[in-house]
Amino acid sequence: MSDNFTLSDDRPSEECGVVAISAPDQVASKLAFFAAYALQHRGQEAAGIAVADGRAVRLHKGQGLVSQVFKPSKLDPLVGPYAIAHTRYSTTGSNSERNVQPYVVETLEGPLGLAHNGNLVNADDLRNELLENGAGLQSSSDSEVLALMLAGAEGKSWEERLAKVMPRWTGAVSLVVITSNKILAARDPWGFRPLIYGKLPTAGWAVASETGALETIGCTDMTEVKPGELLVIEGNDLRRHQIIETKEPQARCTFEHIYFARPDAVWDDLSVHTARQSLGEELAREHPAEADVVIPVPDSSTPAAIGYARVLGVPYNEGFVKNRYIGRTFIEPTDELRKQGVALKFNTLSENLKGKRVVMVDDSIVRGTTSGQLVDLVRAAGAVEVHMRVTCPPIAHPCFFGVDMGSYEELIANKLGVPEINDHIGTDSLGFLSVERMMKALGRDDGYCNACFTGSYPVPVQLNLLTTKQRFDGVIE
Amino acid sequence: MSDNFTLSDDRPSEECGVVAISAPDQVASKLAFFAAYALQHRGQEAAGIAVADGRAVRLHKGQGLVSQVFKPSKLDPLVGPYAIAHTRYSTTGSNSERNVQPYVVETLEGPLGLAHNGNLVNADDLRNELLENGAGLQSSSDSEVLALMLAGAEGKSWEERLAKVMPRWTGAVSLVVITSNKILAARDPWGFRPLIYGKLPTAGWAVASETGALETIGCTDMTEVKPGELLVIEGNDLRRHQIIETKEPQARCTFEHIYFARPDAVWDDLSVHTARQSLGEELAREHPAEADVVIPVPDSSTPAAIGYARVLGVPYNEGFVKNRYIGRTFIEPTDELRKQGVALKFNTLSENLKGKRVVMVDDSIVRGTTSGQLVDLVRAAGAVEVHMRVTCPPIAHPCFFGVDMGSYEELIANKLGVPEINDHIGTDSLGFLSVERMMKALGRDDGYCNACFTGSYPVPVQLNLLTTKQRFDGVIE
Amino acid sequence: MSDNFTLSDDRPSEECGVVAISAPDQVASKLAFFAAYALQHRGQEAAGIAVADGRAVRLHKGQGLVSQVFKPSKLDPLVGPYAIAHTRYSTTGSNSERNVQPYVVETLEGPLGLAHNGNLVNADDLRNELLENGAGLQSSSDSEVLALMLAGAEGKSWEERLAKVMPRWTGAVSLVVITSNKILAARDPWGFRPLIYGKLPTAGWAVASETGALETIGCTDMTEVKPGELLVIEGNDLRRHQIIETKEPQARCTFEHIYFARPDAVWDDLSVHTARQSLGEELAREHPAEADVVIPVPDSSTPAAIGYARVLGVPYNEGFVKNRYIGRTFIEPTDELRKQGVALKFNTLSENLKGKRVVMVDDSIVRGTTSGQLVDLVRAAGAVEVHMRVTCPPIAHPCFFGVDMGSYEELIANKLGVPEINDHIGTDSLGFLSVERMMKALGRDDGYCNACFTGSYPVPVQLNLLTTKQRFDGVIE
Amino acid sequence: MSDNFTLSDDRPSEECGVVAISAPDQVASKLAFFAAYALQHRGQEAAGIAVADGRAVRLHKGQGLVSQVFKPSKLDPLVGPYAIAHTRYSTTGSNSERNVQPYVVETLEGPLGLAHNGNLVNADDLRNELLENGAGLQSSSDSEVLALMLAGAEGKSWEERLAKVMPRWTGAVSLVVITSNKILAARDPWGFRPLIYGKLPTAGWAVASETGALETIGCTDMTEVKPGELLVIEGNDLRRHQIIETKEPQARCTFEHIYFARPDAVWDDLSVHTARQSLGEELAREHPAEADVVIPVPDSSTPAAIGYARVLGVPYNEGFVKNRYIGRTFIEPTDELRKQGVALKFNTLSENLKGKRVVMVDDSIVRGTTSGQLVDLVRAAGAVEVHMRVTCPPIAHPCFFGVDMGSYEELIANKLGVPEINDHIGTDSLGFLSVERMMKALGRDDGYCNACFTGSYPVPVQLNLLTTKQRFDGVIE
Repeated sequence: MSDNFTLSDDRPSEECGVVAISAPDQVASKLAFFAAYALQHRGQEAAGIAVADGRAVRLHKGQGLVSQVFKPSKLDPLVGPYAIAHTRYSTTGSNSERNVQPYVVETLEGPLGLAHNGNLVNADDLRNELLENGAGLQSSSDSEVLALMLAGAEGKSWEERLAKVMPRWTGAVSLVVITSNKILAARDPWGFRPLIYGKLPTAGWAVASETGALETIGCTDMTEVKPGELLVIEGNDLRRHQIIETKEPQARCTFEHIYFARPDAVWDDLSVHTARQSLGEELAREHPAEADVVIPVPDSSTPAAIGYARVLGVPYNEGFVKNRYIGRTFIEPTDELRKQGVALKFNTLSENLKGKRVVMVDDSIVRGTTSGQLVDLVRAAGAVEVHMRVTCPPIAHPCFFGVDMGSYEELIANKLGVPEINDHIGTDSLGFLSVERMMKALGRDDGYCNACFTGSYPVPVQLNLLTTKQRFDGVIE
Repeated sequence: MSDNFTLSDDRPSEECGVVAISAPDQVASKLAFFAAYALQHRGQEAAGIAVADGRAVRLHKGQGLVSQVFKPSKLDPLVGPYAIAHTRYSTTGSNSERNVQPYVVETLEGPLGLAHNGNLVNADDLRNELLENGAGLQSSSDSEVLALMLAGAEGKSWEERLAKVMPRWTGAVSLVVITSNKILAARDPWGFRPLIYGKLPTAGWAVASETGALETIGCTDMTEVKPGELLVIEGNDLRRHQIIETKEPQARCTFEHIYFARPDAVWDDLSVHTARQSLGEELAREHPAEADVVIPVPDSSTPAAIGYARVLGVPYNEGFVKNRYIGRTFIEPTDELRKQGVALKFNTLSENLKGKRVVMVDDSIVRGTTSGQLVDLVRAAGAVEVHMRVTCPPIAHPCFFGVDMGSYEELIANKLGVPEINDHIGTDSLGFLSVERMMKALGRDDGYCNACFTGSYPVPVQLNLLTTKQRFDGVIE
Repeated sequence: MSDNFTLSDDRPSEECGVVAISAPDQVASKLAFFAAYALQHRGQEAAGIAVADGRAVRLHKGQGLVSQVFKPSKLDPLVGPYAIAHTRYSTTGSNSERNVQPYVVETLEGPLGLAHNGNLVNADDLRNELLENGAGLQSSSDSEVLALMLAGAEGKSWEERLAKVMPRWTGAVSLVVITSNKILAARDPWGFRPLIYGKLPTAGWAVASETGALETIGCTDMTEVKPGELLVIEGNDLRRHQIIETKEPQARCTFEHIYFARPDAVWDDLSVHTARQSLGEELAREHPAEADVVIPVPDSSTPAAIGYARVLGVPYNEGFVKNRYIGRTFIEPTDELRKQGVALKFNTLSENLKGKRVVMVDDSIVRGTTSGQLVDLVRAAGAVEVHMRVTCPPIAHPCFFGVDMGSYEELIANKLGVPEINDHIGTDSLGFLSVERMMKALGRDDGYCNACFTGSYPVPVQLNLLTTKQRFDGVIE
Repeated sequence: MSDNFTLSDDRPSEECGVVAISAPDQVASKLAFFAAYALQHRGQEAAGIAVADGRAVRLHKGQGLVSQVFKPSKLDPLVGPYAIAHTRYSTTGSNSERNVQPYVVETLEGPLGLAHNGNLVNADDLRNELLENGAGLQSSSDSEVLALMLAGAEGKSWEERLAKVMPRWTGAVSLVVITSNKILAARDPWGFRPLIYGKLPTAGWAVASETGALETIGCTDMTEVKPGELLVIEGNDLRRHQIIETKEPQARCTFEHIYFARPDAVWDDLSVHTARQSLGEELAREHPAEADVVIPVPDSSTPAAIGYARVLGVPYNEGFVKNRYIGRTFIEPTDELRKQGVALKFNTLSENLKGKRVVMVDDSIVRGTTSGQLVDLVRAAGAVEVHMRVTCPPIAHPCFFGVDMGSYEELIANKLGVPEINDHIGTDSLGFLSVERMMKALGRDDGYCNACFTGSYPVPVQLNLLTTKQRFDGVIE
């Protein structure tokens, strides 16, 4: 529970959602707006849209929700058939406007705009290389590194230049690019983060982080951009190039299925909602419980709780009410409130808990701060037993590929074993889904990054990963 | 679906939530903040807090969510052991700062602040009376009428003055008042809107529109302010006066149970969550359906859908994904998007709908605009049949007691019968819960206002109800 | 030198400028805007415009300069042939939006808007009377008192009602009023503050605090509203009523000529610029000095310095450069800057001061803080002698008629005699113009309020003048 | 007169003021603030301050006046003994935040911040060169070009790197630089724009565009940075390097003396106030007039008018009152106001004009739009003759060195001869000071850039000067 504690979910934070639009017969910025609006769950701190009309690239971006950043007066001037958009989760402290995407620069080949989801693990090396070549860097974002490398790459076309520099990027990059007269989209060869494209109703194409965003704007024929693949879209024309061979095994982020993605997303041919229900079912098989009711920790655990309840034949019901009106608050609770451990974001439905043996299904335990509070709330509502079931294994290792789970010190599973966590949060029993069962629930043997559970990272991670960021934090705008 | 269509729920809009705090050993403004934060669902357009420290009354209010209006720099100066707070839903067009509550005036007896939930039906007469007595009115709000009547009332104390004027107020008034050294709370003799009080953990009392707000700040011993009752609270001392005899039958708003209140609220000894589940169960008995899945229209219909599914033994599941990141948008969709009828606020989970006979449970149909879109979405997701079940009767009459349902012209059930509505929204079948079954589900024979369903208003409504407002709209700030 | 010391002029602060427009063939709000813009020197803290179109009154007001408060989006909706406007100097601490004028209320006779310049000395009594009659007061402004008294007055027309209540107002009131279909203007019977009207070029009339504002919008035939007179203007029709007999002697504020009014103003048939030049000439006769150069303290003393120099045959030149880019700053200087006594608002022109005997002409000395600094600056620039000459007598008494000169404790001439002030500010000699010479320079025997010099107030001043304000400061928005 | 016509002075617009501070025993940001505040006349559109504490560089900048951009909450975090500051005039259309200075980047050698006054005439070539080397440019400002060239330069120290790249900059550059632990200041070898340094009272140094800014913070021993010279300041230690040989003849901007600089500035050993008085005296000798009064066009022409009057023995007086409360307004006048040609920024003092033969002294005529209006105003006030005298020659050529005078098409003297201008603005006679007399008044034979009068530019100007800007305007933030 940090300073804006009342809204802390104690859950991982995804960094970004991306969108790219080529809509020869529509206003691309509007489609980009509605698609970004549907990706709001992937980042609520900042948003931006860049458009192109064949000649110039225009940009508006700012801090806040998509609907706050884009009023008609800001969206209307963004004319043209091409657009890219971005929603961003801003990590604590780096609240600078300079890090908001898309990132647009002028180059010898005309204007270039860029937005991405994911994190490079060799950003520090690449930044130093740029600095050694005499660049002056204005921000601490990977986007600037990507953009300047592209701007300085050799090649007769943006495709060629992208093909040249992409192999140098180690880590998670789901990238969209806009130039004066086309859009490009590319995905790292490991396939860490999702990137999907679909056909717009009458003409053109759209690319986005999730299928839900594409559906919102009427897309059909949705297909995954393959790891290592580059799309080049001009008007209605889409070309695909496998510019880097797909790494085998691939390294899709399991957490997209467990928590990040909207339940209506389909990724790797899996419906996220169905996957979560299966995770709950598998969890019931691995860690059953004698109980009178199964409740979810809202909202992402609902399908898993339904699945868990169904397998065991225990009634499913709601046990928590969540304050839906989000918005960071920096008001600190009084000491008295703190003493009572009141969880300001959740209230309980005692009629569903009182006198009952309760199974509480959650998608993950990261820092462990909220879980204990929720358990206390459920007990205070009269539950006679509280059993917690978690649809993934303990998270004992940080993510370096775009998910802000916190550092080693912050992860409770890095410090405590399951029995100690059970004691710590005060449950009667605690069960985590194992890696094997989790993959079984997804119906996959391999091709996923489970590093946060196993510590086995699919690419080597530099030890000084955070150094650059810390050094450059000295320059604050 | 109006201009800010993407967020329209086609649901009634509640006007207000109120809070009053007497916390001799805490900072009352903080408790008021967190309680108002928990009442955010009762009004997202504006918020305010007034405090008293024994000498002066201090006020801050503004437009936006509670967390937006109150930053530490605004909350910190609000010192003292007494506070009242208000969250407001602002009806279209009257976006004036002048109508935001609490409303504070200086009087001969010192400063007086006031916030309320509900609507007077004789406000026009009362305004005219004040004007005839030479008052100059600054706003179009009932609050000013209430405050000026109080300021001008005879009596040796605020209790006496309130007892004097309250009988003149016809309609719904759940009122909280702050003076330099106490708080008061009162409820109209019909009991239209809820008002609950509870004991603060160490000392003092709190009053709020819903129990959830009181729980959030640690209250126990929650009790309803009786219709016609006045509470006077000084420090830890609470006195109750029945200043008007309770009208029989009482006229609690059924819609609080059906839609407005948070599911964790308890009102009239009824758990709202349980009540909604019972409504769903009764609905299943009155309008069963042959179906493969029962889905709620999120979020308020979830317990009813669970109840409906349980009675019929049909699986419950989620069918819609709702974009939770609220915030009005004024961006219009493109013609192409419009043509497709895409509902930007909802996506479907086709894996739960495809090839299935679907029952969609909703809490109400007001204007009928969203329902048709949702039906289309469910069909587009592959449902073979779509049956709609509604947990209340058709709404054919406007509410004049604080709920913005729209005018006669806007209510679909005022123009169409059930078969025509079924045709209009394109369902295979449509069933509304009857008034009798609804009351049965609530376990009550009487004591509720069902005027929006029956047209039988519990108090006479002036025909010229809206006149004052229209006349005064001429003065715009 | 207060907290926003760097811009303190140590000069009295005028409270307001007012405007009223009846322009049957133009957009009144535009004329009101430009007239208020020309009255910006009478109040830079807040501005407002109210308009009427025959039916409704519309209002926009806010804190800041006229050009900041009124963007086209705010001015354009203010349609109609009638307008009133106000610019306001906000005294420290009462920065509330609620005190900004015009003040608009709904009354039994339709909407009523009002703005005024000046201060009532019996406001406390009048407020209490209103409170006793049951009014609730929302602000600490005289405007609300004036408006509510008008709203509650008997009479068949606004003229009658105004004639009824105006005799009850003791003090300075230059008032403009707007109703749905006319404007009114009135001036207290003493004539403390100016109020002028003129003919608009093609049709209609305008009223304003100064002739310069009327000239800016093309007025001709400028005439003073007589003390005790009321103007009623409908379209092109202007009627004049002497509703209170003019008090003899009248009590025009001498300080308007000395400091407040723009030099292009003509009041009481006197050109302010010429009057100031005459004040300087008379000052030279009363307090000549052997000197090499005469410099003004910019900007208001320039004509007086020209006059002073001319009489003595000493060259006039500039000695100070003033930073024109106003705007309050709350940045505190460093201790080192403070130690040096650097006057951040003024620099010197040493080439005009070095080795010279300098006469520095200023219009007034109020608190005495700036004068000493300026003397130090002139000496630091190399002046061998510094003689100060002031175009009015020592100010030893506060003003209760709309000029914020500070309290008795703050006025240096209330505590020190002229020789002590000379020592205090470090001049070689110091001369104040006497009351007799000052009146001689204006060419008037009587009819002016010189209370701030003489202590002889033209109306009795309540001892508890500030009580109400302090009490009500408890209610802060 | 453009869209924000009411404030147009029809005078050239200076682009910038710069400041650099090394204050080992004070808070540098405060000194930078007050110095920038004193340079507000050199740019009112944007302001910024960057500071260094030996480790990091911190920056705040924004649009508005210095006092608006810097509240205590923004200034207080800017800690450390080093600071640079900038005030900016933003040319129409390029209102982007991205062009506001200082410009800060991270480089291989640590953070680098930079602000400058002046314009490069080879910026287009330099931008292309950077782009060819693979840079991506984010703004259309010269600052980014300067910063990226510096970041990419070879050399063991910033001195060496600056010495390396400065010879490549053609045009006007008065530059201040901040690194983590020192400040640098440099001036182009022609010396177009001023740059002065002085000793802080107890320890350290300050550099600024004008002496007035240095005096404001207590500096002594003020010395000009020589053309081609570089200062390196660490703590109390100042080193000077002549990194480029001073060009002979030098090319100081004459317009600094005529109009831009504050009258208290001393540059090239000339007091600006004295210089302006001499220009007026010389003008009286070259173009005398039979007149009754000499009036200035306020404010910059006042000393010249005093000088002009003195030589001819004609009384000097004020003829115009200027609305001092600046602030752009975008409100358009009514047609009626327009028809009357009312100059909303100026009123006249008819008592000084009526029946008189008037000489109106102005510092320059650029577009000619305001002059005609002022002449009309003076005639309307009753002048029998109006003679205009201008303290510089006709401006027939644009400036490419940092002064926004407009293009060839906009300059009235590029299209019309003096007799035609006389007709155009409606004067009885019109006299411009000749180049020879102007230089004589300044007491200089050579060393000044008079290109705007003569068309003889001191460095070759690229024909495609504006191309880059236009191309890049395509990217709008």
